[in-house]
Formats: sequence, C-alpha cells, structure tokens
Amino acid sequence: MATELYDLTVPVFTRGLKALSAILDKAAAHAAETGADPQALLALRLAPDMHPLSKQVQIACDGSKLCVARLSGAEAPVNEDTETTIDELKGRIDATLAFMASVPRDAIDGQEDREVVLKFPGGEWPFKGQAYVVGFAIPNVFFHLSTAYGLLRQAGVPLGKRDFLGNPG
Amino acid sequence: MATELYDLTVPVFTRGLKALSAILDKAAAHAAETGADPQALLALRLAPDMHPLSKQVQIACDGSKLCVARLSGAEAPVNEDTETTIDELKGRIDATLAFMASVPRDAIDGQEDREVVLKFPGGEWPFKGQAYVVGFAIPNVFFHLSTAYGLLRQAGVPLGKRDFLGNPG
Repeated sequence: MATELYDLTVPVFTRGLKALSAILDKAAAHAAETGADPQALLALRLAPDMHPLSKQVQIACDGSKLCVARLSGAEAPVNEDTETTIDELKGRIDATLAFMASVPRDAIDGQEDREVVLKFPGGEWPFKGQAYVVGFAIPNVFFHLSTAYGLLRQAGVPLGKRDFLGNPG
Repeated sequence: MATELYDLTVPVFTRGLKALSAILDKAAAHAAETGADPQALLALRLAPDMHPLSKQVQIACDGSKLCVARLSGAEAPVNEDTETTIDELKGRIDATLAFMASVPRDAIDGQEDREVVLKFPGGEWPFKGQAYVVGFAIPNVFFHLSTAYGLLRQAGVPLGKRDFLGNPG
C-alpha cells in the first residue's frame, strides 16, 4: 500500500505547526503568570550563532511552505519575516497552515521523481522529490520544531513531549 | 509510486544515527582541543527535568530500534543504558545500526496497518503502523537527534546543519 507523498508532507507539517502554535500559547501563558517578558522569550538562542526562537518558528513555517510549494508547483505566499510578537508568529503559522490546506492532494501525490534543487550560498543541492521530503524537508522542519520546544523548556515553560508531538495517529 | 514503509524507517534512522555518531566525534575532538571534560558534555541538559545528552543518544537509538522491531516483529536487542562515555555511546549507535541492517525490507514493507500499541505509565497509545511511523517514530527520533545537536551547539562544539542532516538525497 505504501505512503503517498501528500501524507508525508501536508498532514505532517500541519500537525507539527499546530503543536508549535499551542506551545507558543503555553509560552505566552507562562510569561503572563510569571511576569516574564514574552519578547525576551522570542530572542532566546541555544548558541550565539544559532537563530533565536522567533526565527526557529519562521523557518519551521518556511520549511513546510516551501516543501509543499516545490512539490506541487503552487506559488508559496511571500513572508517578510517581520513578526516580533507571539501573536504575530501564531499568525504566520496560521497563514502557513492555510496555504498548505489550499494545495490539493493530487498536486503532490506522484511527485516522487520531481526535480527539487535547493540553492545555498555555497552551491546547489539537487534532489528528487521523495528524497527531498524524507532526507531534507521532514528532518529540517522537525529540527526547528524541536529547537523551539527546547528553547522554551530551557526557559521554564511547562511543556512535555506530548506538546511537541501534537495529536498523531 | 508512493513510499514503502522500509524507506520511511531503516534508511531514515540509519542516516540520522550516523550523523549523530559523527557529531559525537566532533564533540570528542572539541573536548580534546579545548581541554573540556567529555563526561561533562554527556551530562548536559536543556532543562533540569529533561534528559541529559547521554540519554538523548540512548533514546534516539531506542526510538529507531523499537520502531523497526515493532513493525517487523524482529526481536530488538536489549540495551541496559549503561553507556557512560562517548565511545560507548558510539558503540550503542553501531549496535542499533547493525540491528536495523539485519531486518530485511520485506519484513517492514506492507506493515502500514499493523497494530502498534505504545504503553506509557499513564495508559496506552494505539496506532496503525503507518501513523506510528509518520506521527510518532520519525518526529520522536528527530526530536532526540535535534536535542543532542542543540546541547552540543550550546556547549560550543563547532557544528552546522549539515552535520545534523547527514547525507540525504
């Protein structure tokens, strides 16, 4: 029976981003309860040369959006990365969810051999669609979701693994 | 064409764990260069109630091993979680890689509807094989791989995203 490419992308990223949005709600609630500055949470980094929480959220959204766009040929919405509050980041997530929901299954299923070329400052990374999803897009999105979760755990926000996983299965 | 279940498990976890092993090599090299205590690295946690790095490695191995065992019916090797050095953790990864390599494709392909019931102290979480892989096993393994990477980045080990991704595509 195997797994169609749509089922490896839209629902996976949708679940992850919904879980992230709920995690951001818990961060906001924790900040309100403790008097912490929610803006300070968004500036947290694991290392000086890693991205702050706000950017982790933006990249989790972009990784999802661009994967779905690259596979389907749908035009991805442009985001200017101007979000500076938890509410605005949740809006960014909502916009990403809406874009993904707008892409029909039949635009993604069957694209396993589609050429996907990632461009980096140092060169290009050519993939076929399936290898791109399994070897790059999924690990990359979960990396940024995990890092966002870890930053908020380190800041004392009460979260557990179930918050990260969302509602699978 | 779609994606067979084997291709969503053994090669994905193999790539992630090989990348983790190489990351641990870089951690050991960094400790040797800077005079840092490698044992102290293994005790790092993002939060007091999160697992230390050593346990993140063990869980990344267990998540991979148990997923492959549950889907295939193969008996997973028992690990006592006694590893206390980087070399021992790399051995644990090697043992996990060897187990996964011993499971043939045809023991995993087609198991999308297999019943997989996860047992927690608080109850049970029943899945079908495909939802278990996509909704639980992959996010969970990448969570622990990402957390291990983040802990070492926070400790100053020179790593980049490519170290996390390994060699996809």
